[in-house]
Amino acid sequence: MAKEITGREENYSQWYNDIVKKAGLADNSAVRGCMVIKPYGYAIWEKIRDQLDIMFKETGHVNAYFPLFVPKSLFEAEEKNAEGFAKECAIVTHYRLKADPDNKGKLIVDPEAKLEEELVVRPTSEAIIWNTYRDWIQSYRDLPILINQWANVVRWEMRTRPFLRTAEFLWQEGHTAHATSQEAITEAKQMHEIYAEFAEKFMAMPVIKGYKTENERFAGADESFTIEALMQDGKALQAGTSHFLGQNFAKAFNVTFSNEKNEKDYVWATSWGVSTRLIGGLIMTHSDDEGLVLPPKLAPIQVVIIPIPKPEPELIEKANQISKGLQALGISVKTDIDDTKRPGFKFAEYELKGIPVRLGLGKRDMDNNTIEVARRDTKEKMIVSLDQVVPYVKNLLDEIQENLFNRAKEYRDNHFTKVDSFQEFKDVLKTKGGFLSCHWDGTSETEDKIKEETKATIRCIPLDAIHEKGVCVYSGKPSERRVIFAKAY
Amino acid sequence: MAKEITGREENYSQWYNDIVKKAGLADNSAVRGCMVIKPYGYAIWEKIRDQLDIMFKETGHVNAYFPLFVPKSLFEAEEKNAEGFAKECAIVTHYRLKADPDNKGKLIVDPEAKLEEELVVRPTSEAIIWNTYRDWIQSYRDLPILINQWANVVRWEMRTRPFLRTAEFLWQEGHTAHATSQEAITEAKQMHEIYAEFAEKFMAMPVIKGYKTENERFAGADESFTIEALMQDGKALQAGTSHFLGQNFAKAFNVTFSNEKNEKDYVWATSWGVSTRLIGGLIMTHSDDEGLVLPPKLAPIQVVIIPIPKPEPELIEKANQISKGLQALGISVKTDIDDTKRPGFKFAEYELKGIPVRLGLGKRDMDNNTIEVARRDTKEKMIVSLDQVVPYVKNLLDEIQENLFNRAKEYRDNHFTKVDSFQEFKDVLKTKGGFLSCHWDGTSETEDKIKEETKATIRCIPLDAIHEKGVCVYSGKPSERRVIFAKAY
Repeated sequence: MAKEITGREENYSQWYNDIVKKAGLADNSAVRGCMVIKPYGYAIWEKIRDQLDIMFKETGHVNAYFPLFVPKSLFEAEEKNAEGFAKECAIVTHYRLKADPDNKGKLIVDPEAKLEEELVVRPTSEAIIWNTYRDWIQSYRDLPILINQWANVVRWEMRTRPFLRTAEFLWQEGHTAHATSQEAITEAKQMHEIYAEFAEKFMAMPVIKGYKTENERFAGADESFTIEALMQDGKALQAGTSHFLGQNFAKAFNVTFSNEKNEKDYVWATSWGVSTRLIGGLIMTHSDDEGLVLPPKLAPIQVVIIPIPKPEPELIEKANQISKGLQALGISVKTDIDDTKRPGFKFAEYELKGIPVRLGLGKRDMDNNTIEVARRDTKEKMIVSLDQVVPYVKNLLDEIQENLFNRAKEYRDNHFTKVDSFQEFKDVLKTKGGFLSCHWDGTSETEDKIKEETKATIRCIPLDAIHEKGVCVYSGKPSERRVIFAKAY
Repeated sequence: MAKEITGREENYSQWYNDIVKKAGLADNSAVRGCMVIKPYGYAIWEKIRDQLDIMFKETGHVNAYFPLFVPKSLFEAEEKNAEGFAKECAIVTHYRLKADPDNKGKLIVDPEAKLEEELVVRPTSEAIIWNTYRDWIQSYRDLPILINQWANVVRWEMRTRPFLRTAEFLWQEGHTAHATSQEAITEAKQMHEIYAEFAEKFMAMPVIKGYKTENERFAGADESFTIEALMQDGKALQAGTSHFLGQNFAKAFNVTFSNEKNEKDYVWATSWGVSTRLIGGLIMTHSDDEGLVLPPKLAPIQVVIIPIPKPEPELIEKANQISKGLQALGISVKTDIDDTKRPGFKFAEYELKGIPVRLGLGKRDMDNNTIEVARRDTKEKMIVSLDQVVPYVKNLLDEIQENLFNRAKEYRDNHFTKVDSFQEFKDVLKTKGGFLSCHWDGTSETEDKIKEETKATIRCIPLDAIHEKGVCVYSGKPSERRVIFAKAY
């Protein structure tokens, strides 16, 4: 099985597609740019969703559901947002099909069923939500509103890649409403922190926290916070964003409230989201030429037990006993009792699927009261006493989680380069890739020119950037801090 | 608060709308026929979803996700299915908006961005899924496929009611593929049983299990199993259906497999679904003129503790202690420490929201080591020793769950009438409503005529119908068993 995967060195893009396909994560569909998320891929998404949902609820958020469709007149109300998404919207214009008079058994769009107003399939839900919030908010006592939605959205992208960029994708979008600017900024920062914590602690994916330049900001936001991760090919992945929307949507949808002094004011807003794109990030942060590598905290199956050479009753019984011990500690286990496949085939299959720990249970081992433990991340094998295997595996899962983070962080740190001239900028980008930390003059013009010449964009202005006088690598104009450039997905 | 709800006797339909609105379950939206599911309504949906998801996974199903859009050519492949849904489909025809040259700041559909093939927003996913299964199935070793999907679907209904019938709704749809007819039938029956079990044990909503007549079958199915509940106004609600699809979709999408003898055959299919409609069923099964009544097993908040008359520190401390005791038993509790509202207001509010148990904790009670326990279903109040309140409430929740089921069952049984003439049929339907058990001659013509004259339809042929010779109430022709008629939502 594993041999069917293209090597990363040979063709990184093909390697990615092979993993997606052969680990059973996703499949192409009959709809341009839309993917089918297969059961194993969806199980990873469920792990991501469930953990984020806990973190959102712990910080006082509740879930709700708003319509898929946005009437065009609402969609266009916030002009910058509308402009940002207009070019990639799926539009519903009719509400009925009818029999094709010229082609028996075929259907055509019924021209008499044309909608009076076209409906946009939501690319994001600020418009429909702020149009609703208007009815929910009269006074400061109705605030804050802290709502999240798990939903599908559609953006008609021209070039698509499974998980990374698809016409339809699954995501969560938080939309909060506040009485003061400060409270909304605090909320946007809080969710930014939660995304970073989730990425590092659960995905084992180190991220740089920062905010976007005006060029790269969400359409309709006053400030966009972002977490930026580094993939193994030296390209950056924007993994989650949290936006301070100011009063832009409140003004577009006339959402006002009376404050404690009984004065009218527009409501302050945030929105924040992560999507199935995170699965693309997971793949490209940890996986290798044998297949997927999953951090234990997001692995649908954390441990697989394989009776060797065959699933004989005695071995199955022992496997079940170990399995119960692990499950009692909250660890998910699968025992493979398929007797039509050989152990070697199974080993390759579970490596391909990224199961963090594999236990090989043979008869001779059992007689010696031992078992073979193989870890997916380093491919090391250990012989462990059967009496100790449950606590051993429990600790090992934590160790793997930590090792994956450290390994990814080391890679990231090794691909974080301070550059001080444009020549150096281009050289490093070409030879090594990764994040380039450099001075920039703060203008969109320079940003655009650098993008044009190198395809690198400003991923973020890091939150922890220190005040440091310097000169822009491109224009030579003065700069006060370094920003982070990279080529990005 | 409670006074704002229209009485059931006065106007049942308005009563329903009032509960939906005033208990904070859903709101209208700017999109025709689409609702906003508000946080409290969505929290109920989460309880429903999480429980069903457990039951699906326990029976070997896994979740996946298929595209929202169905290309027209796939949609029309299974002709009966296509015909059944063609009249209520939202159709995407374009993928871009552009600036309106005649209206600054406005957008129009870009005529140059017309899709070559129109996309149907899924009203159900058999077409897109069976088109995908073709690539996943070669041999009997690839079967069965037991997949479920949680998703939104769109059916452009003309008359809509929140939860009961909306243009967009949330649901789950199971789509399974099997090597034999018998296995598929067994699967369809199993899911039918799971729906019935969920309805009765969790929703406390008694249901009649049966199968549909050809007239009422799902478009594309060979057999449709249904669970039918009775609402308080004597109308039936189809609460869940499970379909044996035969080889219809396999033939339409050319999905074949090699069996163990290496012979080619078409794959056998089922599909099954329940939706946010269940929330409408919950409301109309249990609620009263004071508001929502929720069965404890699906109540997002099972117990509310109200310090009386005000949330003073001593009372809050005691409330927290009780709360911890209840939470340790897996019971969800809210302590209301809002000091801007009086107890009377809060009582009405939590009655309106259907919280199963309310604890009123006053200072004098505390001195006497007692607490007031009020149950939402019967509105009884009991004085309970503080030392015993945790186990008392635990038992009470079970008792309420059981009482709600028994009460609904009693109502249902009292509105289940055997009728033996058409005059009796019409009289009972008019005076009392409910389920009418009667003989029918088995023809679509008679079914249509009865529907035309009375608006009643055959809800199902009950699974437990006994063989009983009789004559059709309408045509006088011979019949072998009674079927169940009712007016339905």
